[in-house]
Parts: sequence; structure tokens; C-alpha cells
Amino acid sequence: MHRNPSNSYLGLEVASAFFKPIQQTAPPSPTKRHTKITVIGTGNVGMAIAQTIITQDLVDELALVDVNADKLRGEMLDLQHAAAFLPRTKIVASVDYSITAGSDLCIVTAGARQIADESRLNLLHRNVSLFSKIIPSLAKYSPDTILMIVSNPVDVLTYVSWKLSGFPSNRVIGSGTNLDSSRFRSLIADHLDVNAQDVQAYIIGEHGDSSVALWSSISVGGVPVLSFLEKQQIAYEKETLENIHQDVIHSAYEVIRLKGYTSWAIGYSVASLARTIIRDQRRVHPISVLAKGFYGMDGGEVFLSLPAQLGRGGVMGVVNVHLTEEEELKLRESANTISEYQSQLGL
Amino acid sequence: MHRNPSNSYLGLEVASAFFKPIQQTAPPSPTKRHTKITVIGTGNVGMAIAQTIITQDLVDELALVDVNADKLRGEMLDLQHAAAFLPRTKIVASVDYSITAGSDLCIVTAGARQIADESRLNLLHRNVSLFSKIIPSLAKYSPDTILMIVSNPVDVLTYVSWKLSGFPSNRVIGSGTNLDSSRFRSLIADHLDVNAQDVQAYIIGEHGDSSVALWSSISVGGVPVLSFLEKQQIAYEKETLENIHQDVIHSAYEVIRLKGYTSWAIGYSVASLARTIIRDQRRVHPISVLAKGFYGMDGGEVFLSLPAQLGRGGVMGVVNVHLTEEEELKLRESANTISEYQSQLGL
Amino acid sequence: MHRNPSNSYLGLEVASAFFKPIQQTAPPSPTKRHTKITVIGTGNVGMAIAQTIITQDLVDELALVDVNADKLRGEMLDLQHAAAFLPRTKIVASVDYSITAGSDLCIVTAGARQIADESRLNLLHRNVSLFSKIIPSLAKYSPDTILMIVSNPVDVLTYVSWKLSGFPSNRVIGSGTNLDSSRFRSLIADHLDVNAQDVQAYIIGEHGDSSVALWSSISVGGVPVLSFLEKQQIAYEKETLENIHQDVIHSAYEVIRLKGYTSWAIGYSVASLARTIIRDQRRVHPISVLAKGFYGMDGGEVFLSLPAQLGRGGVMGVVNVHLTEEEELKLRESANTISEYQSQLGL
Amino acid sequence: MHRNPSNSYLGLEVASAFFKPIQQTAPPSPTKRHTKITVIGTGNVGMAIAQTIITQDLVDELALVDVNADKLRGEMLDLQHAAAFLPRTKIVASVDYSITAGSDLCIVTAGARQIADESRLNLLHRNVSLFSKIIPSLAKYSPDTILMIVSNPVDVLTYVSWKLSGFPSNRVIGSGTNLDSSRFRSLIADHLDVNAQDVQAYIIGEHGDSSVALWSSISVGGVPVLSFLEKQQIAYEKETLENIHQDVIHSAYEVIRLKGYTSWAIGYSVASLARTIIRDQRRVHPISVLAKGFYGMDGGEVFLSLPAQLGRGGVMGVVNVHLTEEEELKLRESANTISEYQSQLGL
Repeated sequence: MHRNPSNSYLGLEVASAFFKPIQQTAPPSPTKRHTKITVIGTGNVGMAIAQTIITQDLVDELALVDVNADKLRGEMLDLQHAAAFLPRTKIVASVDYSITAGSDLCIVTAGARQIADESRLNLLHRNVSLFSKIIPSLAKYSPDTILMIVSNPVDVLTYVSWKLSGFPSNRVIGSGTNLDSSRFRSLIADHLDVNAQDVQAYIIGEHGDSSVALWSSISVGGVPVLSFLEKQQIAYEKETLENIHQDVIHSAYEVIRLKGYTSWAIGYSVASLARTIIRDQRRVHPISVLAKGFYGMDGGEVFLSLPAQLGRGGVMGVVNVHLTEEEELKLRESANTISEYQSQLGL
Repeated sequence: MHRNPSNSYLGLEVASAFFKPIQQTAPPSPTKRHTKITVIGTGNVGMAIAQTIITQDLVDELALVDVNADKLRGEMLDLQHAAAFLPRTKIVASVDYSITAGSDLCIVTAGARQIADESRLNLLHRNVSLFSKIIPSLAKYSPDTILMIVSNPVDVLTYVSWKLSGFPSNRVIGSGTNLDSSRFRSLIADHLDVNAQDVQAYIIGEHGDSSVALWSSISVGGVPVLSFLEKQQIAYEKETLENIHQDVIHSAYEVIRLKGYTSWAIGYSVASLARTIIRDQRRVHPISVLAKGFYGMDGGEVFLSLPAQLGRGGVMGVVNVHLTEEEELKLRESANTISEYQSQLGL
Repeated sequence: MHRNPSNSYLGLEVASAFFKPIQQTAPPSPTKRHTKITVIGTGNVGMAIAQTIITQDLVDELALVDVNADKLRGEMLDLQHAAAFLPRTKIVASVDYSITAGSDLCIVTAGARQIADESRLNLLHRNVSLFSKIIPSLAKYSPDTILMIVSNPVDVLTYVSWKLSGFPSNRVIGSGTNLDSSRFRSLIADHLDVNAQDVQAYIIGEHGDSSVALWSSISVGGVPVLSFLEKQQIAYEKETLENIHQDVIHSAYEVIRLKGYTSWAIGYSVASLARTIIRDQRRVHPISVLAKGFYGMDGGEVFLSLPAQLGRGGVMGVVNVHLTEEEELKLRESANTISEYQSQLGL
Repeated sequence: MHRNPSNSYLGLEVASAFFKPIQQTAPPSPTKRHTKITVIGTGNVGMAIAQTIITQDLVDELALVDVNADKLRGEMLDLQHAAAFLPRTKIVASVDYSITAGSDLCIVTAGARQIADESRLNLLHRNVSLFSKIIPSLAKYSPDTILMIVSNPVDVLTYVSWKLSGFPSNRVIGSGTNLDSSRFRSLIADHLDVNAQDVQAYIIGEHGDSSVALWSSISVGGVPVLSFLEKQQIAYEKETLENIHQDVIHSAYEVIRLKGYTSWAIGYSVASLARTIIRDQRRVHPISVLAKGFYGMDGGEVFLSLPAQLGRGGVMGVVNVHLTEEEELKLRESANTISEYQSQLGL
């Protein structure tokens, strides 16, 4: 999908007259520092992620893949037309996965749409079928890549991608509750009229209705809020925090009800994870990782969101948070539900 | 459209316990440095502009207005949920224009959609009717604002906005050929394998099929391309540049054909104009301005794109480019066509 | 100190031929959004602050003042020569304080140098004498400005500036322990191999040997470290944290011993405070504020570092941290020492 | 020069308790995307470059080398203390060149200082002696690196570095007239009251008194200034441009006279070159390259500044600018002078 094929001969002629080589040069060594991200799926979520990554100048090359060739080319051209306003990022697109070769990070946003009256399990089967085309193709062309799954149900599809890729578990993650945590922080900041970047707060576990808010992790401007509230005996406030957690759970539904889909917040959220990985920043994010062995989740191979340190090699470790018994119980219940669910997939 | 009204009492109680004032303070003086941009219309173009402005941290406050209250609230919430990933920008939204009060810049992307078999003139009349609600409301709540029109046909609607606002002409501009020029630069850069930011090239005149490419303005890495080509006698190349201009004209149509609309490139283009204005950068951009008196366009009050220097006060001046006779003629013809067209509007 | 005075006539002539005004314009309204920072003192600290502010594109105008006219003009020209690499910031410099008029923030880095065998009190008297020229001049030309004191001893000189300015206390702050806290976070991050931006930790109180490390405030990736350590019973670790605090206290001395002065870290630290204020980000920083009334410090009017929320109006509030009795005692002792010291100044 | 050696055992113990690995992981593949810049010399120029590179987040690792171990460690610590305000850049420093291993770019700012009454040639001999220690050490530890020479006389020392390294000529450049050109653009922008980023203008040839201003390259906002002036017959203006060129030549001397050295502008200038190389931006900069074969310079192997396209492999080509006969003559004269001079070095 290169541009101006008819001009290419003239282009080369002019380019070689316009630039002349200096003497006694040698070809550059292989482009070992070239960084590349692939985004699979050019729907609203995929494009919000792609555009945010380009605006924030995270990589040298961005590859887009979609089954809809027209939509794909339209999105590629729309981004390329902005080149004069942006640092140089090479933007390529194709229905063929060979274009993704050599990616450092592959972000999967593709997913089957629910058909009327379709069961959740049937939809999942169709998604597994879709992923069994996507994931092996990505693994084939970028055997060292990190896979980041955004499609829902994110925890199960991250497990599916891990199985289908044959990758070690540190190189397969799901966007998980990174966005839920961000919404949580944003609502707490709003509540206290502070900068959301000064709020620390995690939501972990299953991305969705059964997620777990870690009350003890909430701090504002470096001050732990829970112990502050205990000492101040502001009893009502805990109920308020519970309400904020409920608001977080409902907020995705509300945005979908109002505008039909979510896009901007998930775009920023995933771009933030991409930055940590590509720049090897070793920051801690709540993302979906292989949770087996943590907090008594010893049964099946389940992916759930836990606060994990990320770098260029993927997951570096999981933060050893101390949970209450109630929180641990809730996590284990989620793990069991997901585990049973996964057993029906036949992977 | 504030969040969490039910929590507000508790929020205040906690906030005032969490933060305590220091002694002997005084209230801050009016927030004289507070910067604000309003975007009218939350379709694909309006939202791409809003999101790019927020990512690039251009203002303290962003106001969104649309007639569709649900879509509007959904987009506002989607942006607000990303607060933890972004510097603090206050994001507000309402169907009521009072929310736009005190804007430094108002960007209008709203427009009527063409109905099947509708004449271009009929569509324009409906747009004028729409603008006669929008523009006076913006002028009422932000009497010192700069108006930037993005809706098409951009040159005529910029004229309409100027008339409806009663503003001096330096405070009413259209996004014009700023994006066409960017596409032109991007295609030339692609052709010569250089960085698009090193390419200087203007398309001026009417935004659309009759736009004028200023060949003498093209330089790459500071080297004027036309005189280079003349000296190198690369005759074919001029045809290639003509083809690139045609590609630019068709590129918007192509993106619309492929993905249904354009969004990302116009988003970056308008954000770039907003930055120049809000940060008072005094950069030169090809934008739609009152062209009367330039290049023999002495007839009517027509808006066309010319290279203009922009700052916090709006248009500071138009660059005195030397055009060929052919280029001047083409500009005057465009001006006459637009002028006749405008005479039918009864403004 | 304008450039090219001899060219100015020609410049205007050419500029007015190069740019032509459009018709029916009006002059812009007063530049109400223009932001300006003044830096007093162009030594290593002042210049590291100035350069970091310019690189980070925080303001429209930067004014420099120093008593050494040559050094001042040299620094101004050196910064101006980089204009092509930077967004537009107007850089002005003069020995005359009229150049500071209309500043949003004035940062004072000037200070008398210790003479051999001079007592600390005598040095302070000379600094008070110096400040009695600087502060009233700043207050005269920018009556609404925020004053940020960086010169040492920072807590006493912030008090002195408050007295000399007659400003409300929310508009007079000292850079205080913001840098100590940053060093603390950087050493903890190093110790645990995490990103320093994921570490929360405060040092408060007097900037210097008697500063107080708030152990309960330390969290890494959102996980409170102290309760983690308690639960893990890693007894030795607390000693390690004490050693890190001692390293922080000695680190400024060490840098001064090694390179003769400190510059880069204080430059980033103060630029970070400037960003919070100018962009109204409402972030929490440990800075020197009027501490009277906090933690039983009810005696004199003492400035000490406490975690304070900052915005465009200055100090918005102090975070209500719960201190241990030992920490409160230490703060009060510092306050008493400073208070007695200040009583000798005769202000 | 690692920190906290005494804490390291405890650090590891805590770190491994704080982070726990997930199951079924594999070690990351070699850090192929890790980017690294080395700066040789921690004087005012070297540190301004280092600090600007860190502020602009250009690389993963920065290595500093100097013969003065105390100064070196002081500068490293001062930068490290700012970690909490910056994205993660690993900062290392040593008197031993092994610390530079695997650099993508090595920037040399070290140089011998002129002794009273020392001849220019004697000083150069001492610099050659210094470089014969530096360059082979850099080439040994980073055989694929690009060498960028900043020390003066920059053109001769770039030639010397090329000879000493045995590198192909596309991987050895001098900062050359990149800063002169920036000063030129800044003064023209000042003269016309436009944004310096909208001014294109090159100074090429020898860095210093005999540099050549390319009048035909000057454009403002995409409008060639010389042809504009010719058409406007503003005769005096050409003299003004000549004066601006003289101002550029004298500006470095003036800054040195006023503040004792130059630092900020060269820091931004070199960081700008580093960005183009590390991010593979393929921008055009006037830098010192092997000029043999250009513009009739067929005699010796001379390095002079020409507009060159830069990327991750170093120099990609030289722009084929059309010079006037006078300009070509001036370039050849400079080349001859330098060539004779170099013949005395015995390399």
C-alpha cells in the first residue's frame, strides 16, 4: 500500500539529484534501534490508540491491520496527511500480516460483534476463532514481540492469546483494569478537587462488574486516604468511595449508552502502557497478567489484573500488595468463574 | 452537566478536612491567565480537534457544545476519564452556550448534512440558518474571542460568520487550505524521502478544487525546489508536482470514500492553528482571511486562504507573496465565483 | 537591551512590506493571557531554572535581572541564540526592575556569598539587606505576582520576603524541601529499581539538616512501603530508609564539594513548581509556607515546608497529614529555633 | 560509580519481596532497542548538551566521561537527583571509557585550553594529542557509533577524528555551522518580528570568521526573501542582511566576552542534531562533513559545513544547493586554507 507508484521513478531521479552522497561512506548497520508498534483493528478503539501513539511520538513505525481494506487505507491516509504537523513516524497498513514484521509491541483491538440473542459463550467462541487467525500470524512475523490484548472479555482473550502464541507469560498482557483505575483516580480527584495525577488508586481483578477496588492503595498527594479517614472518623466517606467504585463500573456502560462506544480514554490508557514498555520505564500499572500463584489463586491458569511492573521485556514482576481477606476472597471467586468458563473453550 | 451531584456535600466536607488553609491569605486575583477554547460540534472532526488540543495541553479549559445532549455528554465523559493520563484541562459540555463564556478561541465544526438531491445552494441556506444561531451566541458570551470556522464550504461560511458576528476581520478566520498545504508537504516529502517538517509549500485560494499551488514557495531543507529544477532541467518533474497537487485535491475525497469522513489530519491541522493563536507564536499559516484588496481582488468581500501571520490577536498580516500572472488570475476568478455565490445569501 | 537598534528602521520598513494588514481589522484587546516569569540572579541556579523553564515552554515571556550587567546580557544572548530550536518565548533582561512588570511569578535566586570567618547571622543580615532592595521592587512592578524564594537559608528568607512584600501569605513561598523530597524519591527508586515517578515520599520541615522524613508517606507504585515492611517484618530495612534520609541531607553538600555548586536538580525542581502554578495544576508539593497554626506550631510566624496544594493563586491549602508525636515534636523544635533566629532580624 | 553500594544487599532483598515474578516467564531478548548517547567532557558545553538531551527525553542511557573524577561525579549526581521530575534515563559516569560501550552517538566536547602566548598550531597539536586518546577509545567500545565533534576548531578536529577512528565518513560529523545558522535565523526573525521556526536560512563553510551565508536559502514563512527584496527593490536591505551575518560571526565572541563561555545555545543546537540522528528523522542540518568532491573542492580531505540530511546511519546525503560563483570561490579558499593547515598535523 505504497503511495504514488507511478511517480516513483521520477522521484528517485529527483531525489538522487537533490541529495548527493559524501565520499568514503559505508552503509549503516542494520536498523537495530528501530521501534515499531502494530495495532490490529481500525475501529474506534484501535484508531484512538493509534492516533494517541503517533501524537505522543512513541515509535519510529506504526503498522495497522484490518480485514476491511478500504477502511484501513482511509485511516492510514488520514494519519499520513498529518505528517507535516508531527515528528517522523512511518505509517504502514495492510490486510496482510507480513506488514507487522519486527514489531516490539502488538496491540489487538479486533473482536467479533455480538449478534442479537447470541449467548455470551457463543460470542466468545467466535472471538477465539478470530484470534486463532490473528495471534499465530503476529507471533510468526514478530517472534520476540509483546502482545497486548484490548478486546473484551479482556482477561479470557489474554489467556487465549497466551495459549495461541506459545509465548512466555511475561510477554502476553491485557489492558485489564488500567483504564478502570484511571477512571477511579479521575473521579476521586474530581471529588477532592485535586489533580488526578496526584491520586494513586488501584482497581484490580477481573475487568468488569466484579473488579476489586484496593481501598488501602488510595493516596492523594502522597497521603494515604483510608488511614486519614479512619483518624478523622468520617464514616460516611467510605460509602462515598464505594459509590465512586460503582460509578467506575458503570461509566463504560454509560459512555456506550450515550455515544455508542468508548474510545478516547482507552486510547490514552493503552498509549500510556505502550510508553512504559517501549521506553523501558519500569512503571507499575494494573494490567491483566497470569495470576496463578498469587493470593491463593492456585487452581487454573487465569489472567487477572494485578499491579505489575512493566518494561521493554514485558512484565517484570507483580507488586506484593497486602489484601484484606475479603479482597482475596473476591479475587479467588473471579478466578474460579473465569477458570470454569475457560474450560469450555477447548484450548 | 457536573459530575456526582449526590456526592458533592460529602466531597466538600472531606476536601476541607483534607486541605487546610494557611493563615493571613487573600483570595487570588481574577483568573486573568485562564485560557479557554470552545469547540462547536462533537462529530468526528470536532472530537478529533478536541482530543488533539487536550493531548497537546494547549489550554486550561475546553468547552464542547452540540445539539445532541447524549452524544455530547458521552464524549465529555470519555475525555474526562482520561484525566489521570493528562495534564489538568477542565472539560465542560452543554447544549447551552453560556458554557462557552470567556473563550479565547471558538472553533466551529457544526454543519448541516446534504439531503439526497439537495442543491448546493439549498444546503448553504440551511447552513446559514444554522450559523445564525451559533455565531451570535458565541459572540454574546465571548465578545473578544477569535472565531475559527472549519465547516464547509469553509470560505463562504467564514464570510457568513464574519457578517453574523460583527467582529473585526482579524478575529474571523477559516481553516482554509492549511490542511491542503500539509497534505501537499507530506506528499512532496514522501516523493523525495525527506522529513515533511523540512518541506515548505503553500496551497492558497479557495479550499477545494480551484485551489492554487504556489510553485515558487516550495523549498526542501531550505533549498528552493523550482529554481533547483530549472537549473537541473528536469522537465518531467514539473508534471510530477502538478500530479501531486491533483493528489492533494483528490485526497480528501479519497479518504471520505474509503472511511466515510476525514478526521485525524484536520484535527492536527486545526490544533496547530490553535497553538499558534493561544501561545501567540506569530507563525505563518495559509488560512482563510478577508482577501479584499490583495492581488487585485477588489470587488466583493471574499474570504480566501492566503499565507497569514497569526497571533493571540488573530490575523497580524498577510505575507506579500509574488504570484505569477496565471496565479493571480486564478485567485481572482475564485473570488468572483464566491462573490456571486454570496450575493444570493441576502446577508 | 534590545537588539540591532541600528537596523530597526530598515526592519520596520521591510516588515511592513513583507506583511500587509487585512482590511476592517481592529487592534487586539490587551494581552490578558500573556504569562511571564521573572528570575532574579543569573548564577548557576538562576540560569538552570531559566533554561529549564524555556525548554519546557512554560511561559510567553521570561525576564532576567542581575546586578552584573555583562553576565546578564551574555546569558540573555546565549538563550536568544537558541530561538530557532524552541517555541517562541520572549527573553528580556535588565539591571532595572521595570523589566519585570506584570510577572505572574518571580523566582529569587540572588544571595550574598559567605565571607571567610563570617558568622551565619552576619551573612543573614547582609542577605536581608539585599532582599530589602529586591522584594519591594518586585512587589512594586508586579503587585499581583507570586514570590518564590530559592536563596538560602530558604525558610528564613521566605519569611523575610513575606514581611518585605506585604503580600498575603498564599502568595509567598520557598522552594523548601521540594528538591530534598525529589532526591529522597530518586534514591528510594534506585534502591528498589523502580521509576522515580512511581515513588511518593515527602521530606518536610526545615530545608537542611533538621528536615523530617515522613515515613508513612512513602509509597511505591501505589503500595504504602511502611505497612508492607511491617507485615514482611524486614527490620533492617527501616535502618536503610534512615540511611537514605541521611544521604539526602548530605547529597547537596556532596555535590557542592564535588562540582562547587548545585544547579541541574534545583533547576528541574523549581521549574516543576513553576509549571504547577502557571498552568494552575493544583498539584501537591512540599514547599515552604507560613506554618503557624499547623501541628502545634502556634508561636511565631515561621515558614517551613509542608505538603501544599499549589495553583495560579499560590498556596490553596496544606494537606492534613497525620504525623507521629516524634515528627510533630521535631517540627516544633525547628519552628522554635527559626523563630528565635528571626527575632534578631528586627523586621 | 554506582550508588549506595552498602545498601545493595538489603535493596535486593526488599526489591525481591516487593516484586514477585509471574509464572512461566522467559528472560527478555537482548535489549536491542536500548538507545545510548555518550558525552565526552563535562564543562559548560558538555553539561548544557547533556542536560538538554535528558530534558527532551531522547535516549534510554546517557554516559558522561571526563578526566576530572570529582567534577564528573558531581555532575552525574546533580542530574540523578532530578530523576523524579523526568522520564527514566539511566545516567552513568566514569573516567574509564568502558562505560561508553554500545553508544549510538558519541559527542566530543573536550578540548585543550589555550595557554598564554601559545600559537594556534601548538594548541591544535595538543588537541590532536588529546583526541588520539579519546577517539580510539570510543571506537573500541562502540564500533558502530556516530561521532559528533563539538570541540574547536571543529572542522579540523572532525577531520582528525575521522582519521583516528578509521570510520566511514558518514559516521563522523562536526556540529559545524548548525548553531551559526540558528543564530542567523534568530536574528532575521527578530528583524522581521516573526517566529524563528518560520525562518529558513543557512550559513555554511568553515565554522568561524570565513563562514558563507547562503542568501538564496533565506525564506520566511515559505517566501524566499531575496527574490522578494529584488522585486521590491529594497536595496538597503541587502546591507542589513550582511550586517546580520557579521552579527552572527561576532555573536559567539560577544557571549564569551560577556559571560566567559557559551553554553545554552550550543546545548540546544547539538541536542537538535542528536534528536534527528537517534529518532531517524532525516532532517536537513548544516553540519561539518567530508566536503571533498563538492563545489570544486577536489584537493584535500577537508571537512566543512554543508546542508546534509541526517538519520540513524549518520549522513545520508548533501543537498545539492546552487551557489553563486562568489560563494563557491569562498568555500574553495576555506578548503585550501584548512587543507594546508591539516598537512602540518602529520596524520
